[in-house]
This record gives sequence, structure tokens and C-alpha cells, in this order.
Amino acid sequence: MEGRRMGEGLYKMIRRFFSKNLQKYKQSCTQLLKLSKNEARNIIDPMETILCDADGVLWLYYGPVSDSPRIFNCLRERGKKCYICTNNSTRSREGLLKKALQYGFQINIQNILTSAHTLAHYLKDLEFLNTVYIIGKEGIAQELDAVNIKHTQTGPDILNCTLDEYIEHIRLESDVGAVVVGFDDHISFPKLMKALHYLEAGERCLFLATNTDETFSRTSVICPGSGVIVRSVEFGAKRTATIIGKPSTYLCSSLIKSGELRPETTLMIGDRGNIDILFGYNCGFHTMLVGSGIHGLDDVRKWRNSNDPELYKQVPDFYLPKFGDLMQILYH
Amino acid sequence: MEGRRMGEGLYKMIRRFFSKNLQKYKQSCTQLLKLSKNEARNIIDPMETILCDADGVLWLYYGPVSDSPRIFNCLRERGKKCYICTNNSTRSREGLLKKALQYGFQINIQNILTSAHTLAHYLKDLEFLNTVYIIGKEGIAQELDAVNIKHTQTGPDILNCTLDEYIEHIRLESDVGAVVVGFDDHISFPKLMKALHYLEAGERCLFLATNTDETFSRTSVICPGSGVIVRSVEFGAKRTATIIGKPSTYLCSSLIKSGELRPETTLMIGDRGNIDILFGYNCGFHTMLVGSGIHGLDDVRKWRNSNDPELYKQVPDFYLPKFGDLMQILYH
Repeated sequence: MEGRRMGEGLYKMIRRFFSKNLQKYKQSCTQLLKLSKNEARNIIDPMETILCDADGVLWLYYGPVSDSPRIFNCLRERGKKCYICTNNSTRSREGLLKKALQYGFQINIQNILTSAHTLAHYLKDLEFLNTVYIIGKEGIAQELDAVNIKHTQTGPDILNCTLDEYIEHIRLESDVGAVVVGFDDHISFPKLMKALHYLEAGERCLFLATNTDETFSRTSVICPGSGVIVRSVEFGAKRTATIIGKPSTYLCSSLIKSGELRPETTLMIGDRGNIDILFGYNCGFHTMLVGSGIHGLDDVRKWRNSNDPELYKQVPDFYLPKFGDLMQILYH
Repeated sequence: MEGRRMGEGLYKMIRRFFSKNLQKYKQSCTQLLKLSKNEARNIIDPMETILCDADGVLWLYYGPVSDSPRIFNCLRERGKKCYICTNNSTRSREGLLKKALQYGFQINIQNILTSAHTLAHYLKDLEFLNTVYIIGKEGIAQELDAVNIKHTQTGPDILNCTLDEYIEHIRLESDVGAVVVGFDDHISFPKLMKALHYLEAGERCLFLATNTDETFSRTSVICPGSGVIVRSVEFGAKRTATIIGKPSTYLCSSLIKSGELRPETTLMIGDRGNIDILFGYNCGFHTMLVGSGIHGLDDVRKWRNSNDPELYKQVPDFYLPKFGDLMQILYH
């Protein structure tokens, strides 16, 4: 008992020491590659937990970002707790695990945090017994199945007749208690109409969204992200959705509460200021922007020079061109 | 010449007299049915022009609002210039004329003002030579045809394969110079994706919308209005659309400029505060809310008690339960 107390005291001292050392980097957007290896190591070494966004950080749509699996696995071997922490709700945790393993990331399902999984547990914790109306993909449906919550089908729901004919034969569920909106490439007028109908019930129908990412990129085009759908439902329903994914803190709140994850020794790595870095800011984590996805140093300059305190929150503590660049800092 | 000048002087005097008399009603939401018939007639008689919103005022989706055709025709017979002034872009002016005549409204095509028609002329006035990408229905396409402006097809554009397969074979026009968004019950992910793609061109691609009405009603459900689609494209494109329909003033600006329509003797009648009444306010018209559509006296109370000056602009000068109630004031 005495020994444990001493150990805790020592741990607190070390933590305080490192916190002070890292304090000077807060929202400084320090470029790790411009520091000496020693300085950079003094930043990474004290981190117990590394949270990595997936799309734009670990992988792009055609495959892993170079060196990402290698550095992810190395950090894990060094005893750090490495998590994937993603707003992507199109796959269940099982589905993401499969993809991550296939790309060479060594990870367990417990270390995958997704907006769909967190959303399902958010409803479970509320002892939700009604049906969920889903605008979204299989990932949400599978996570709801896993906690035995009833839901409507995902997939196409198109207008294959006139609107008046559709309305005449419309099939509405009688016990919908939540509308959940996530990424859905089968978004359609009937889906929007049903969502607005259920949300008319006011407080009796929850309104949740996985995330509000605006867009994502493919070779030749810009794709609408979940946010495009969320904002349209919000506008029509004149209601604001509860956002479960980043930048809200739900994805990590139970891990923080249980002590599994200590904010002062946690680093959040992401490619979006308004999603990942803001999430890290909101959770009290250290934050690192990587330039392999949506935002880059030009964006950081804009946020830093902005008079809007909300935009300023997106300025990260650290910057790296890509996650894999940690390799040369830590292992060369 | 001398006589004409005298006549003009007399007209100005009369107009000034009536303007003063009506000034006291500005944003008072005076209920015409609570005034004496004489007082009410002194309000309506000086009006040279009556602008009527269509959906919710002249008709509902199943037919004309009772007495609306009768009072519309009576006002016209009394020598007033009566216009239909609608944000509905699903039909061309030709199509709306057919519907109005069928419902018993005596009207010429020149007296139909629509967002689609105004939008086509807005582009024509800019000497627009490129292709228009349409999210919307035939009404927009037909009005663009009428002024010889090229446009993409309307109707379904659905995802009938995986998103990656769709993107691989995506057909994009090379000379799109404007994205136009209106009501579209075939809204789909591919349409949103294409709109965002074209809008990426920045200033080289105009971004216009017919209107931003949030919703409209059918028997059993709430339907998403154009605004639901406009807001989603705006969010994804991080751009703001130029709204051609009400509450912008474009629908009447050329009539005001030509002197055909004098704001001080024009009454705008509508069922939406944030669309019709705000439009009237923006144009300097007298305004009347009717309770046969979206907004009612409870809403007016909220706007009046609001500290938001933008909401206060929606408070109308006059109120009637329905347009047809003018019959008992003027003709009984």
C-alpha cells in the first residue's frame, strides 16, 4: 500500500514535469521535422496513448499512407496504447478491424473507436427501446444490432413514381424514437422526408448525427461528406443534431472517465482542424496535424490569424507532413 | 403637356395622401376583419397592384383555397394589376398559367412571376454562354430553354452501383458556368457530388438558387423544400448561393425599375413571414399575411417579441385568415 502510494507520487511528479515541458508547445503548430531528434523524442516519448484518425492519416481511399502501418506498429511495440479514432460510420468496428489488419496495422477491436459504435452505446446507455430511423450505411445498422436496438433498413429508398403517389403509399414506422444521420451515398428525397416527419415529434424523437465532415476527396471529384446531409436535415427540421463523432468528446469520454486514457499523456493525430484538432482541444489532449489529408499549414496560418476564437482552437500543437515521418524521428 | 403635368401633380398628391394614411399600419399586423368595412376598404382601394404568392395563398396542393379565384378575378375587374409571385420552380410560367386557368384564375402569362423565370433572365442579362448544371425540375429547364441557355438534364441520377464505380465512370460537363439549385424530389448523392465538383471552380462557376423555403406540407408528411437542398450544397461547397426568389427582390426588380409597379401602391400577400412578408419588406411594399398556409398569428407574435431585428422584419402590415376573406370586406 505504502509502495503503491509512493509509486503514484512519483508518477505524478514525472507527469507534472512532462506537462510543463509540453505546455510551451500548446497551439504552436511546431513542425516536428524542424526540431532536433532529441527535442522531438522528448515530445513523443512521454505520450502513453496515441489516437490516430483513419482516413487521411493512416490510409487514403486507395491504400495505406506510406510508413503509417510501420510507425503505428512500432509505437505499439514501444508500449504505447494506439487507437484508431474515426468519424467514418460506413463500417462497423469489425469491418474497420478487417480493413486495418489487411493494410498491416496491428490492432485489436478494443482499440478502434468509431462514431457509429459510440452512437450505439450512447443510445444503449439511455436504455433506448424504440426504433432508430437511419440515414446512413451498414456500419450504423451493425453497431445498433450489436446492442440489440431496432432500426430501419439502410440502402436505396428512391422515388420511382410521382411524389404524390409515393406519399400516398408511404410506409412510416410508428415507434421511431431517434433519427440518426451519417454518411449515406443513397441519400434521397424520401429519406429526407421521413427524417423530417419523425423529427416533427420534437422531444419524443432524438436527433443524432455521426459527424459533420463537409467533404472528402476522390481522384476526379469532391464527395459530399456526412455534414452535407446533417445540415440539410437540421435546416428542414429546424433542430440541431447531437454530434456523436469528433469534435464532440463522446468518442473518448468513457475511456477518460475510466482512467484508461489520461489527457495529459495523450496525443491526437488527425488531418482536419475542425474535426480532429478541435476534438483534441476539447478533450485536453496534445494535438498533431498531418498534411496527408484535408488541411495543411496554409489553413493553420488562416486559423491563427483569424479573430474567431473558435477557429483558433483548430491550431494544433504539432505538425508533420505525414504520420509515417515519425519513423525518421524515432528510429533513425 | 401642361395637362399631363397637372395630372401627374394630382396623382402625386393623392399618392402622398394615401401613403400617409397607410403609414400607421406598417408592421402592425392589423387584422382586416376587425376593422370597419370602410377602414378596410380605405386600405385596399388605393392599391394599384396586388402580388399573390401561389402555394398556401391561392391554392393548396389539392385545389384552390376557397374564394381565392373569385376575389382574384374581382380585384382584377376593379382595375388592379394582379400578379402571381411564386418561388415554385417546378413548373415554367406556361405550366403555372395552365394550372391557374384550370383553377379559375383569370390571368395572363405576363402577370406570372416565378423564381425559375427570373433566374433564366438573370443569366440572360449576364449574357451567360456556358452550360447550367441543374438540381431541380422541368420548370427551370424549360425557362432556360426559352432564353436559349444550355443546361444539363433534370430527373433521376441515382447511384445504381458502388460509389467508386460511379466515380470511375462519372460524366462531367466541361463547360458548366453555373450551378442552379431548386426543388428536386430526385435529389441524390451523384447530384450533390456533381454540384460540389462544379462549384470547386470558384468564381468561374456561378451558384444560384431559386429559393430557400424549408418545408411544405402534404396530408400525412412534411416535405423538404428547396432550402434543404440549397443549404446542403452551400455547406459542402463552403459558398453562399445567390437566392433569386423571395425574399430577394429580383422577382420584381425590373417591374419596379420600369415604373410598371410602384412600391407605395403595391400589396404583397403571402403565407410565409421569412419568404413573402420579408420580400414585401425588402421591396418597400405593403404586406399582408394570410393564415391559410405556413405561418399564423402565433408566429407573428414570436417575431414581434423577438430581439432579432431580422425576425421583426417578418411582421406584416395586415393579416387575414385567408385571401378569399377580402370578398366580405369589398363586396358585401
